[in-house]
Amino acid sequence: MNYRMVFYTVGRVAIAIAALLLLPLAVSVYFREETFFSFVYTIVFSAVLGLALTFFLKPKRTTIGAREGFAIVALVWIVMSIIGALPFYISREIPDFIDAFFETVSGFTTTGASILTNVEAMSKSLLFWRSFTHWIGGMGVLVFVVALLPNVADRSIHILRAEMPGPTVGKLVPRAKTTARILYVIYIVLTIIEILFLLAGNMPLFDSAITAFGTAGTGGFGIKADSIGGYSNYIQWVVAVFMLIFGMNFNLFYLILLRKIRSVLKNTELISYFAIVIISIGVITSNILSLYDNFADALRESAFHVSSIITTTGFAISDFNAWPNLSKAILLVLMFIGGSAGSTAGGLKVSRVVILFKTLKNELKKMLRPRSVSVPKMDGREIEKETVSGVSSYFALYMLLFVVMFILISFEPFGMETNFSAVAACFNNVGPGFAAVGPTASYAAYTAFSKIILSFSMLLGRLEIIPLVLAFSPRTWRRD
Amino acid sequence: MNYRMVFYTVGRVAIAIAALLLLPLAVSVYFREETFFSFVYTIVFSAVLGLALTFFLKPKRTTIGAREGFAIVALVWIVMSIIGALPFYISREIPDFIDAFFETVSGFTTTGASILTNVEAMSKSLLFWRSFTHWIGGMGVLVFVVALLPNVADRSIHILRAEMPGPTVGKLVPRAKTTARILYVIYIVLTIIEILFLLAGNMPLFDSAITAFGTAGTGGFGIKADSIGGYSNYIQWVVAVFMLIFGMNFNLFYLILLRKIRSVLKNTELISYFAIVIISIGVITSNILSLYDNFADALRESAFHVSSIITTTGFAISDFNAWPNLSKAILLVLMFIGGSAGSTAGGLKVSRVVILFKTLKNELKKMLRPRSVSVPKMDGREIEKETVSGVSSYFALYMLLFVVMFILISFEPFGMETNFSAVAACFNNVGPGFAAVGPTASYAAYTAFSKIILSFSMLLGRLEIIPLVLAFSPRTWRRD
Repeated sequence: MNYRMVFYTVGRVAIAIAALLLLPLAVSVYFREETFFSFVYTIVFSAVLGLALTFFLKPKRTTIGAREGFAIVALVWIVMSIIGALPFYISREIPDFIDAFFETVSGFTTTGASILTNVEAMSKSLLFWRSFTHWIGGMGVLVFVVALLPNVADRSIHILRAEMPGPTVGKLVPRAKTTARILYVIYIVLTIIEILFLLAGNMPLFDSAITAFGTAGTGGFGIKADSIGGYSNYIQWVVAVFMLIFGMNFNLFYLILLRKIRSVLKNTELISYFAIVIISIGVITSNILSLYDNFADALRESAFHVSSIITTTGFAISDFNAWPNLSKAILLVLMFIGGSAGSTAGGLKVSRVVILFKTLKNELKKMLRPRSVSVPKMDGREIEKETVSGVSSYFALYMLLFVVMFILISFEPFGMETNFSAVAACFNNVGPGFAAVGPTASYAAYTAFSKIILSFSMLLGRLEIIPLVLAFSPRTWRRD
Repeated sequence: MNYRMVFYTVGRVAIAIAALLLLPLAVSVYFREETFFSFVYTIVFSAVLGLALTFFLKPKRTTIGAREGFAIVALVWIVMSIIGALPFYISREIPDFIDAFFETVSGFTTTGASILTNVEAMSKSLLFWRSFTHWIGGMGVLVFVVALLPNVADRSIHILRAEMPGPTVGKLVPRAKTTARILYVIYIVLTIIEILFLLAGNMPLFDSAITAFGTAGTGGFGIKADSIGGYSNYIQWVVAVFMLIFGMNFNLFYLILLRKIRSVLKNTELISYFAIVIISIGVITSNILSLYDNFADALRESAFHVSSIITTTGFAISDFNAWPNLSKAILLVLMFIGGSAGSTAGGLKVSRVVILFKTLKNELKKMLRPRSVSVPKMDGREIEKETVSGVSSYFALYMLLFVVMFILISFEPFGMETNFSAVAACFNNVGPGFAAVGPTASYAAYTAFSKIILSFSMLLGRLEIIPLVLAFSPRTWRRD
């Protein structure tokens, strides 16, 4: 284990966070808010921590292996969540530190689960920071660091792999640094396009930026008590479409830039993703038709929430908790499926679900013809054995941890629907669940213990379990 | 596909069912009940069907392959559930055929989910038949046929494999027929021992037999509105212990007979099974302590229901639905774990859970040391690759079907807790769930459509999915 490299990278991230905090600081100056000093203190603390770590622990070898990758990612996400919680806590706008930590983890992990009971009472600068954490966490802070800073470690692909979602993470180009840059450029450009579309619908600039951060990171923090419900139908459709876009694999946008449209249109995960979306919208629209005045309203409601839930964003335009069982059951399943690999979305990811399906079909075929040899295929290529066993183990580990967390928060007095959907919504980085944690409610009523468990489950979901689990194994930290 | 052999075996089972129906017929004679003719008609119908099939479709080749095995098992279980439902339907004691079918499937699959709202109003002979289906279904009707009838097919191990639960089914002795006989002898002897223990507690003979059938098959149909709640503490402890015994792998009893005690005590599945049971009893006892007068009562309540739920029996001595969330959450998880492979219990089976755990641990280890070679082990031997991939696929298929069935019954007006636990309780062959399908309620309020879905889920659970799924594939029925 290359300890120095691990802490050095944590230091770099602390510096990056200090720099990123200048944006909400500027917002607090612009709106002349009292939060100014909360940001200044946090920036100073983060910068000093970062400089100290990078100065005193300058590594002799910059090599990063798989173990260092996992350790860095786990440590970075915990440290930045603590730092990110400070402005909320110092300003006393979230007076309890556990609450502030929960809210920040929820932000960075792009979950969007909130303990705020009156979001509209918050200062603008803190609302900005809260939603900005979505944007930072969406593409990943380490991807950001790898993209921007000079002297990045050799083989930093191990960091990218550990931070980026999906069963297999490929480099777009041979160099990890260039891959990270391309991804961030696509991310920034798409975010700006969304802001322009929102401005065109007469949304104020501040609201547009916040909404775009929540959409781009598939996070879902809003600044209104009714989330996106108070905005026009046009705005709601724009958000619905952009949520779907940010739930797509970013590699596909790169292929579009390279004009490889044909291979994009043939992509199995993309086709499956849109097939699931369209079928879900169809079924839910017909299921809720009687609740709305006309077909257009029912379609908009259905499309918005399907898009919001499968991409694990969590924006709402009405209380889907009041929908019929069938619609709620479909939304619950979509929470687990999640968006595409290589997107900012959470959940199991469509490609994992597809691989599981194909593996299953192949196993069943083998049972009928035990002596036949057949291998599951995807996108015209055989799925590698390691991918298959990796996806199967991931699924089992995912379910196991789900059960553990569900039991751990069962000390709460809430019913099974609340607790089950709370774990589902946090673990899959969705945000709102059903019943007492529905889209019009908050997580405020949970005890500090459960909030810590749920924060941890958000981190597990965002980092796709493995890095965080391995970071708790002494084997990871063993000296070479 | 050897069609003749498939239908010939179905015919043999029909004859066996006709013979088994003589027992409830005798009960109806003894109690002079009006159900007499319902049994006579059913016996005649079943016998004629069986004789016709065996006479006209006598196979030229008696070879059974994997495909024939799956087809036979699927067909036999559906046909015998229809025949078994006839006495309830003809006697008008269950006037709706779908209800009668649900109740019979629930019986044969050892689920114990009931649509009866007043069980004490039923005739004794039908109550006897209802519980006797548990006993027949527990060890398996095909195992019974293989054990008893002469001229059994070559390689009938394929039938045993498809009907018997667990990731790997081994023969105790080289011949399938002898294996089946040994299993049935152990089964009968244990059932008789339980009846003797119950009689010793002054339980009437009729009640003892019914209770033993429900325990042995890990079924759970009772004859009282309060299940086992009205009997003495001694009776409740006897039932609790015997449920645990019938949730053990029957191969272990054979090993005990061979005096290989040491290898029994070292058995990983057995150790894990009892570890889960003891921990669950401990946690639940402390969780419910304040609800009961003293520690002994809390312990008995906890031990009885843990034993009942992990073995997927479903007997109850009180309404565990009123317990705190934590206890309910643990019971819900136990429903999924289920009993041991090679027992009469349902659920995923402890050995599958253990194999999943060991595979996971091995995969995580590999991630830290990508170049190391390590293989998961169990009971001192390496777990075969096919077993690992089989268990992983089984788990994925299980979850997939769970989701499909959960969505299909979401048309019902019940809440998520009811629908979710209904699928969990039926698919895992437990019986009672939570909320509106709790131990003091019934499945009567579900629509016919949902009752068919739930019946199907019970069959899927009992036959461990694969045979039933493959029976719906045209590939299975294709001519060679």
